[in-house]
Amino acid sequence: MVMKSVLCFGDSLTWGHDPETGARHAYEDRWTSVLQKSLGHGVRVIPEALGGRTTVFDDHTSAADRNGAKILPTLLQSHAPLDLVILMLGTNDLKEYLGQTAIAAERGMRRIVQIIQNHDFGKTGQTPSILILSPPHICKTGDKEMDDFMSLKRKEVKKLAARYELLADETGCGFMDMSTVAKPSPVDGVHLDAVETRAIGAAVAPIAAAMLLI
Amino acid sequence: MVMKSVLCFGDSLTWGHDPETGARHAYEDRWTSVLQKSLGHGVRVIPEALGGRTTVFDDHTSAADRNGAKILPTLLQSHAPLDLVILMLGTNDLKEYLGQTAIAAERGMRRIVQIIQNHDFGKTGQTPSILILSPPHICKTGDKEMDDFMSLKRKEVKKLAARYELLADETGCGFMDMSTVAKPSPVDGVHLDAVETRAIGAAVAPIAAAMLLI
Amino acid sequence: MVMKSVLCFGDSLTWGHDPETGARHAYEDRWTSVLQKSLGHGVRVIPEALGGRTTVFDDHTSAADRNGAKILPTLLQSHAPLDLVILMLGTNDLKEYLGQTAIAAERGMRRIVQIIQNHDFGKTGQTPSILILSPPHICKTGDKEMDDFMSLKRKEVKKLAARYELLADETGCGFMDMSTVAKPSPVDGVHLDAVETRAIGAAVAPIAAAMLLI
Amino acid sequence: MVMKSVLCFGDSLTWGHDPETGARHAYEDRWTSVLQKSLGHGVRVIPEALGGRTTVFDDHTSAADRNGAKILPTLLQSHAPLDLVILMLGTNDLKEYLGQTAIAAERGMRRIVQIIQNHDFGKTGQTPSILILSPPHICKTGDKEMDDFMSLKRKEVKKLAARYELLADETGCGFMDMSTVAKPSPVDGVHLDAVETRAIGAAVAPIAAAMLLI
Amino acid sequence: MVMKSVLCFGDSLTWGHDPETGARHAYEDRWTSVLQKSLGHGVRVIPEALGGRTTVFDDHTSAADRNGAKILPTLLQSHAPLDLVILMLGTNDLKEYLGQTAIAAERGMRRIVQIIQNHDFGKTGQTPSILILSPPHICKTGDKEMDDFMSLKRKEVKKLAARYELLADETGCGFMDMSTVAKPSPVDGVHLDAVETRAIGAAVAPIAAAMLLI
Amino acid sequence: MVMKSVLCFGDSLTWGHDPETGARHAYEDRWTSVLQKSLGHGVRVIPEALGGRTTVFDDHTSAADRNGAKILPTLLQSHAPLDLVILMLGTNDLKEYLGQTAIAAERGMRRIVQIIQNHDFGKTGQTPSILILSPPHICKTGDKEMDDFMSLKRKEVKKLAARYELLADETGCGFMDMSTVAKPSPVDGVHLDAVETRAIGAAVAPIAAAMLLI
Repeated sequence: MVMKSVLCFGDSLTWGHDPETGARHAYEDRWTSVLQKSLGHGVRVIPEALGGRTTVFDDHTSAADRNGAKILPTLLQSHAPLDLVILMLGTNDLKEYLGQTAIAAERGMRRIVQIIQNHDFGKTGQTPSILILSPPHICKTGDKEMDDFMSLKRKEVKKLAARYELLADETGCGFMDMSTVAKPSPVDGVHLDAVETRAIGAAVAPIAAAMLLI
Repeated sequence: MVMKSVLCFGDSLTWGHDPETGARHAYEDRWTSVLQKSLGHGVRVIPEALGGRTTVFDDHTSAADRNGAKILPTLLQSHAPLDLVILMLGTNDLKEYLGQTAIAAERGMRRIVQIIQNHDFGKTGQTPSILILSPPHICKTGDKEMDDFMSLKRKEVKKLAARYELLADETGCGFMDMSTVAKPSPVDGVHLDAVETRAIGAAVAPIAAAMLLI
Repeated sequence: MVMKSVLCFGDSLTWGHDPETGARHAYEDRWTSVLQKSLGHGVRVIPEALGGRTTVFDDHTSAADRNGAKILPTLLQSHAPLDLVILMLGTNDLKEYLGQTAIAAERGMRRIVQIIQNHDFGKTGQTPSILILSPPHICKTGDKEMDDFMSLKRKEVKKLAARYELLADETGCGFMDMSTVAKPSPVDGVHLDAVETRAIGAAVAPIAAAMLLI
Repeated sequence: MVMKSVLCFGDSLTWGHDPETGARHAYEDRWTSVLQKSLGHGVRVIPEALGGRTTVFDDHTSAADRNGAKILPTLLQSHAPLDLVILMLGTNDLKEYLGQTAIAAERGMRRIVQIIQNHDFGKTGQTPSILILSPPHICKTGDKEMDDFMSLKRKEVKKLAARYELLADETGCGFMDMSTVAKPSPVDGVHLDAVETRAIGAAVAPIAAAMLLI
Repeated sequence: MVMKSVLCFGDSLTWGHDPETGARHAYEDRWTSVLQKSLGHGVRVIPEALGGRTTVFDDHTSAADRNGAKILPTLLQSHAPLDLVILMLGTNDLKEYLGQTAIAAERGMRRIVQIIQNHDFGKTGQTPSILILSPPHICKTGDKEMDDFMSLKRKEVKKLAARYELLADETGCGFMDMSTVAKPSPVDGVHLDAVETRAIGAAVAPIAAAMLLI
Repeated sequence: MVMKSVLCFGDSLTWGHDPETGARHAYEDRWTSVLQKSLGHGVRVIPEALGGRTTVFDDHTSAADRNGAKILPTLLQSHAPLDLVILMLGTNDLKEYLGQTAIAAERGMRRIVQIIQNHDFGKTGQTPSILILSPPHICKTGDKEMDDFMSLKRKEVKKLAARYELLADETGCGFMDMSTVAKPSPVDGVHLDAVETRAIGAAVAPIAAAMLLI
């Protein structure tokens, strides 16, 4: 049997940023690990997640390149052949000095999908299926300054699900809304504790299995 | 027990380019998979390999960014915390329109080591150990035009081991010479068949285990 | 008689995006074609128009480089010798994730003018004259969400004419206000139907002829 | 009848650099103008030619971006819908500080073809046909220093025809060898006088017409 | 005695933009010159100041690269060995088409500090100390349109001092608040006349001397 | 009296790399310091020198941007108004993985001159005069491998003087040949000991004074 491969392309929510410690969740608590365990030995789940990653917006506040569109072609070739790409991005696009609105994030996600669907895999397999996840919502933290700062983002992030679903329909991708699955921690209003993080993996697993025909 | 992580940053020799088919070796035949199996469940081996990757040279003949130095900070943050980084690069640096000589490749490898050792991992762990592998040599193919074209590279690739060993000593890295472990296929003179590819994983495993203190 | 050359550097309004079909207006309906016909065989009108082009803002939602400042030096050398450059840009600068305001768009247009006036044409002719066009306004579409989203842009786009006119005076360029010439289609609130598109060519033709001394 | 469009993507040989004057050939002497005249009013021939343009190599000795791969997506979208793209590049790739050899130029040309064939034209038409032209050869000038400097290039440029022909076959492109059509001027050993430049247009016209089905 | 070196990395407020003339203050009126005079012959004060410079935001309205993070590594190596780096940036980050808020500027300043503290100076000395200056405030000009445009910036710039002070504490840097030292000119609301500019140098000198242990 | 300003744009030879220690020559031993002392208090000599700097070639073996053309516009604006720019570059261009030949270095130097002469200084003064220095030659070190590696560079560096002199004549720049003034150290074959470094400052001073009309 040929090993199947699933690329999970995401930001700190996929990386597993722990809002309590600021470090990374243990391996077994990341949603990509839960997905790996669920899909079993015939599938490789490949996490490619970076704190602060956007769809297509430059953000030079980090040594890493946070613009997802710039790094994606390299990752597609590095991990080919691929059967499925799972995308969960958009929260960072909403930063006020980046894309700001759900409309901008959707345009970025559309470009990400276009990069995958037009990528030339040569002798290394076919264009993979794509599953778009709209991210969890953002909640208040009780820190007034931060909550004021995040008020627009709290509103815009809620619009992502409807926009991503339409995009998925239009481009032949799968879609799931993670705001129905996981709630952010009130510690920072954005990131997920271990239980919520694991919930994403559990929710995604059956859909991923179906898209992989396993 | 905390999971340990090993990043394998390489080119087509790490990716597993099959000289017979032009596609990728099966998962279990890649040297990173052999290493994973050998190191066991307490260690995650993370392959980040791209055909044509150089240390620091731009090569725009591909949709992917082949300049290793440009993408490495992103990968370091994506896969942190890291305990060990294994580097096998240099063969592509020797292309006549890129670095050309072993001296240039060593300068590139020095920059790669510098990027890792100066990376700010913040709350996500310490600077990882580094193991530098000098790549297998290049052999003749019987195609006279190609062999003529590759004659300088055949000569320069042999100089990498001595240079990388000195660099490793100077910068506190481990070193192994893969030209003593694996021979290229005469089909294209560069790439490794499955047996040779697996040999690299077997050779690297005990050293990696020692460096990981496992 | 030496052929004269006019470069038309613009965005989707110059490219000829049809709001009804999403495709491109027929060749004869684009305003650059109307201008070509009017100026006759002694002048080459060269359209260089890209949907989404800005003056100086990066926008990675497309495979094309939408930052006008980055591509302009290449186009100036490619089409030299040039007698006149006609610029109609600014609408895309007003996107909320880009420049946002008329002040930002004017700064971008100022940079575009600076690039042209400082370009070293070497043996290929003199610095061309420049004609700045402020773009048509934006109207409501009846789609409440989109109209809300566009409300700031509707306001800011109206400020471009006054700002561009001052800039043109200061830098020795010609100026015309296209909002007095063409109205956007209520289908998307931004783009021009064929009749309005042709109107721009007709309005620009006598001024361009005067600037070309023909 | 719908207007057809032909994009001519090239370097100084397509731009029309006059070896006698260092300026540009008159409009009617450029091979793209000869092609336009031959194909008639139902076809737009669009010259996009830049002195020093390479396929994929960066050359910062100019204010313009000479790397063809970086600018091509912008030009494809700007001039869509396109029926045919004619490519004549490679001579500048052979500069000793760039690609140097015919093998490197071929890899660059392969990337150019890949960019065109994978470009997402959306609602603006289909992937155009491609016609690859291998460039004229290089001759001696009588200036010993320059002739010595150019000796490798004189040899390598002769290898382009065979390599490009194979590439064209492999990728479904048309091919013509311009070294059988035009000879460089002994004034600089590289560029074409007006007669030789026009000869290219005359030679290409019937093949372009056939590929356009006109 | 070994010469000590102080790098002053700033924007137009450090460069010495004269709000009356639009040109540069005389050498002796720039704050870096006042600092040089005060610190005496045993110290070199090196001004590296650019109008419009941001911490980490791209701004292509200028021929110069205004993104401080991109140019800083070059300046650190050019002027090594360094004993002290004085940073006064943030005002330009607040432009509505760039970072916009004090939170964004602080993230940029954090990145600047990180670049310095992680820079590999090799054989050229140790990591320098860092002194962060929060910039003067912005005042009204009486030009209603400009004052409206600047109202958000007037508010956000006042938040920089508290944020920079926390950042300085966290990263082991010195801190001073220049809004207590210098007032902007009502001519443009942002820039400093000669007296106010000199005041910055006088205020910084004793702290710089203390940090240099002189 | 208005202070005059001289920008010295160079590489490790201007920076003051000490071949014995690998660190930097003392402040008073750098040629720019000798020049400063000679020209006196009415002139500011501004050293902008970076080890490994090229004219226009990318070299990613360093954290700093070694491509002189990319950083020059920023430095021109940062240090304006400028009366004179002194350029000593080219040795690094000759690296086998960069420009390789004197012809390439001259093309790079031509671009550097073009950037200065076309820079828009706005209200900050006039275009400065330019003085081009061809660099010292390269000598043997007794290390056979290094000497073999450097043999082409030893030959090509000798050709720079004649080429730069013609370029200077053509573009209205001053010219001096530093190979007649300073000899490299046999320790590394390239860099200058303190005596030789100071000699450059002494030789340049009277010419610089003349060009500054002082």
